[in-house]
Amino acid sequence: MDNVSITVIRRLPKYYRYLEELIEKGITRISSQELSNITGFTASQIRQDLNNFGGFGQQGYGYNVEDLYRELGKILGLDHRFNSVIVGAGNLGQAIADYKGFEDAGFKVVSIFDRNPKVIGLQIRDIEIRDVELMADYIKENNVEIGIITVPKESAQEVADAYVKAGIKGIWNFAPTDINVPEEIVVEDVRLNESLFILSYFLKNKV
Amino acid sequence: MDNVSITVIRRLPKYYRYLEELIEKGITRISSQELSNITGFTASQIRQDLNNFGGFGQQGYGYNVEDLYRELGKILGLDHRFNSVIVGAGNLGQAIADYKGFEDAGFKVVSIFDRNPKVIGLQIRDIEIRDVELMADYIKENNVEIGIITVPKESAQEVADAYVKAGIKGIWNFAPTDINVPEEIVVEDVRLNESLFILSYFLKNKV
Repeated sequence: MDNVSITVIRRLPKYYRYLEELIEKGITRISSQELSNITGFTASQIRQDLNNFGGFGQQGYGYNVEDLYRELGKILGLDHRFNSVIVGAGNLGQAIADYKGFEDAGFKVVSIFDRNPKVIGLQIRDIEIRDVELMADYIKENNVEIGIITVPKESAQEVADAYVKAGIKGIWNFAPTDINVPEEIVVEDVRLNESLFILSYFLKNKV
Repeated sequence: MDNVSITVIRRLPKYYRYLEELIEKGITRISSQELSNITGFTASQIRQDLNNFGGFGQQGYGYNVEDLYRELGKILGLDHRFNSVIVGAGNLGQAIADYKGFEDAGFKVVSIFDRNPKVIGLQIRDIEIRDVELMADYIKENNVEIGIITVPKESAQEVADAYVKAGIKGIWNFAPTDINVPEEIVVEDVRLNESLFILSYFLKNKV
């Protein structure tokens, strides 16, 4: 499982989402061909992708939707509950804290940190905004594994360093810049600017 | 230029971002090897990628940073100003409207729409939240090319349909579901859930 390509791994959450939609529709089993029609990936690619993790289908039956959904969830680590914190209580930090969908998927935001005295003490849902000076202790005392960065790019590295020092294991980075962290720290970047530029590219270069 | 692969296109905004950082540092020229050290892509991949668009380097000189930055900007359509609107004035919609970085890059949010009377009439910066009933006329009268979707997934298709009917050309979709639109409409999805699940995967499957 260690040498599954990142391209395959990035498709797993898509399969997971489509399976969730199938469950919502009451569909209990599906062939790789039907899955192909929905996802746009080829049936053989789907079979190959899933075979990396053990191959959950049965010849002539296809996939049991609920089983596959549950197994993919385990592979993605969604059977685990992750505590996370946010540094940066601006609109984006607040939007992430406010979105219950992440919590439902097992990612609970337990605190937000900022250095602006005007927002310290405020709450988003039941999540308090605390002074960033308290962050390191809070992370250690509350089993926090994920640190979310929603500060401007100029402060992103400083926040990343503080997260690493406090013992965080993974960073979800929304700042539009690269952060440098030790190899054992997992970093996932969300590049909203880049996504918008791709939209722009295709608007300009439409055939 | 029509048959450049999507993988190459998705690297362009990254080059653009790195070039911007080089300009900020006052660096005026760079070799593909130095660019490789910064970006993590190989020098030959960088040369190949850029050759798709005309090849801007000179043997023995490398790339002129400002020239390449400007040319990539043009290729990405960033020399064009796009008016955009948002449907969904929740935290995420407000965060996008409030982020001046998109406007600086040429993507101006000119209005937000919602159906909640409690938020209609409010302003984010100088951007008014209007009744979604007014959307179609507003889009036609204000040369709006991009529609942003920040509503829950249950309403995403309905918003997409309304955008298409109003004549929008591109959709930036933050709802965690696929939207179906005519082929000529450009759709760029931002899948925050999927990004978080990838982080989770690597946290669980860390070597």
